Amino acid sequence: MADPTTPAVLIDLDVVRRNIRRFQDYADAHGLRVRPHIKTHKLPAIARMQLAAGAIGVTCQKVSEAEAMIEGSPDIRDVLITYNIIGAEKLAHLVGLARRVALSVVADSETVVEGLSGAFAGEPAPLRVLVECNTGADRCGVATPEAAAVLARQIAAAPGLAFGGLMTYPPAGGVEKVQEFMARAKALIEEAGVPVPVVSSGGTPSMTSAARAPVTTEYRPGTYVYNDRSLVARGVCGWEDCALTVLATVVSVPAANRAIIDAGSKALTSDLLGLTGYGHVLGRPDIAIDQLSEEHGRLVSERPIGLTVGETVRVVPNHACVVTNMVDEVHVVEGGEVAGTWRVAARGCIT
Amino acid sequence: MADPTTPAVLIDLDVVRRNIRRFQDYADAHGLRVRPHIKTHKLPAIARMQLAAGAIGVTCQKVSEAEAMIEGSPDIRDVLITYNIIGAEKLAHLVGLARRVALSVVADSETVVEGLSGAFAGEPAPLRVLVECNTGADRCGVATPEAAAVLARQIAAAPGLAFGGLMTYPPAGGVEKVQEFMARAKALIEEAGVPVPVVSSGGTPSMTSAARAPVTTEYRPGTYVYNDRSLVARGVCGWEDCALTVLATVVSVPAANRAIIDAGSKALTSDLLGLTGYGHVLGRPDIAIDQLSEEHGRLVSERPIGLTVGETVRVVPNHACVVTNMVDEVHVVEGGEVAGTWRVAARGCIT
Repeated sequence: MADPTTPAVLIDLDVVRRNIRRFQDYADAHGLRVRPHIKTHKLPAIARMQLAAGAIGVTCQKVSEAEAMIEGSPDIRDVLITYNIIGAEKLAHLVGLARRVALSVVADSETVVEGLSGAFAGEPAPLRVLVECNTGADRCGVATPEAAAVLARQIAAAPGLAFGGLMTYPPAGGVEKVQEFMARAKALIEEAGVPVPVVSSGGTPSMTSAARAPVTTEYRPGTYVYNDRSLVARGVCGWEDCALTVLATVVSVPAANRAIIDAGSKALTSDLLGLTGYGHVLGRPDIAIDQLSEEHGRLVSERPIGLTVGETVRVVPNHACVVTNMVDEVHVVEGGEVAGTWRVAARGCIT
Repeated sequence: MADPTTPAVLIDLDVVRRNIRRFQDYADAHGLRVRPHIKTHKLPAIARMQLAAGAIGVTCQKVSEAEAMIEGSPDIRDVLITYNIIGAEKLAHLVGLARRVALSVVADSETVVEGLSGAFAGEPAPLRVLVECNTGADRCGVATPEAAAVLARQIAAAPGLAFGGLMTYPPAGGVEKVQEFMARAKALIEEAGVPVPVVSSGGTPSMTSAARAPVTTEYRPGTYVYNDRSLVARGVCGWEDCALTVLATVVSVPAANRAIIDAGSKALTSDLLGLTGYGHVLGRPDIAIDQLSEEHGRLVSERPIGLTVGETVRVVPNHACVVTNMVDEVHVVEGGEVAGTWRVAARGCIT
């Protein structure tokens, strides 16, 4: 198959399979269940690969994302949406989803619990709701184990709902805090006579220390399936583990140490994740992508740039998940050859 | 009409009309032709408003973007693509475009000129090609007026091509350099007996000093149609001139001075444009959006945050153009009410 027109997102399926297998093996060895976050790939076919390797279900962030994934794969029968679902329209969609798959969501306030209860009170089966806990990322989540226990009891008592357990998205390196917070919250809830069936944590940077928080029963890695420059920089993986690359064409070499490629922020995005520059040109560690505009990426080097107009380069982006969201389709590579084009089913699902 | 489910991109058409009129009046007063860059809105209906107000045509950055715009509006009959077009597939599409509309492109190297000539040599009408000049942005463009003159003569001599003039995308505040570079290049080219029909410059930040480079015949403003936080920060406009806002719902208020909205980088993007934080919450200058993840925006204040779960806020993003590219549809507002939903026809057109 000919190389796609550029810029194009390439997904190396051999690397994908290896990445999925590696974490599944770790989880199996430590008695952890795997529930991958599909935000990284947004592809039903890759969710199917993750489920076939042993995942118990998937994680989505938004209702529309879950709908798109289920539409694309009948293999997806168990979904956790790690988001506070608010508002009549979204709640109606959530009810529809719960009639099709085993569904769980999270909540971190009584307001969210009341909304969920109102929507599910008349449903034949209760909706499982986990309490989101803030273990240091300072995003969503109740602030203390005591607050988690209060909300758990409210969920358990709410019509249409069942208490599903505890969930957190910890900061990288926060495994001790996860253990401390979640074990304390679990004990408080169980003391009140409510079982805690699931304790869910996540994040690729910390995934191979997940077992150091033994309270954890499920893990939600996302980026591990593709990896990216941010994870190479953290020492989590090497360039050979990066399954997603952006194929780009050199469109201008206007100075001896500068070249412009046709991948800008509309392909690579402006996500920095604490890094300097916007991606890594494979095979050219001397090159920095020091500036992006929407359709231009600027490559600079302290050496002569040594690129010619019309040649292609492959770029590992800073953050793989957000690149997936920029394109209608990705080109899958097997055995080093472009083997097909897959539509990114859950791209742009922000609601 | 009910408010859309969040996050949602709102476009205030009353503000759009005022923004279009304001720059068209400036251009008319100074004898400048206006060729708006559609990257900001990607909407055939707004291109139509710009043309109706007096624009002579539109600017696109990529071939696929031009195709999507033409498909959406028969009013678009004159298109400049300000990009080096390279590769057989894109050149074939370019030939198709040239059969439908008056088309110009740019080039900054002999390699690009040769590719264009190869594709158009057999066509009944020549393709107009402008020389892209680097007036300080250090992106694409020939480095000197002398190099511009050499490339202009090559274009004029190439089968299938006609020399169309000079084009630059200057850095903000670079109007003196534009005048100096372009006037010198124009003189050199005319000395060789080749007319220079168009001198095209662009960029919203500098648009109201465009006339201070009198060599300029055409101007390509993009962001002016919507404006954004970066332009307010530069003093180019006020919040009341910002036509694009992101409507978001508060999904969590986990601490006294922190709230989380359902618009993250998948709506607002990570573009900083030199600013701190990721957007401006209308009516709340005390709030900073200090962190985005894909579906979460974190709002912090030194005061009590004073927001409740379920309420909505409107955010002016740092950069309007890139927000347009994140969504399949925008919601248009007229007279303060949501009046309809428009599909973003040229979203995701990166090739």
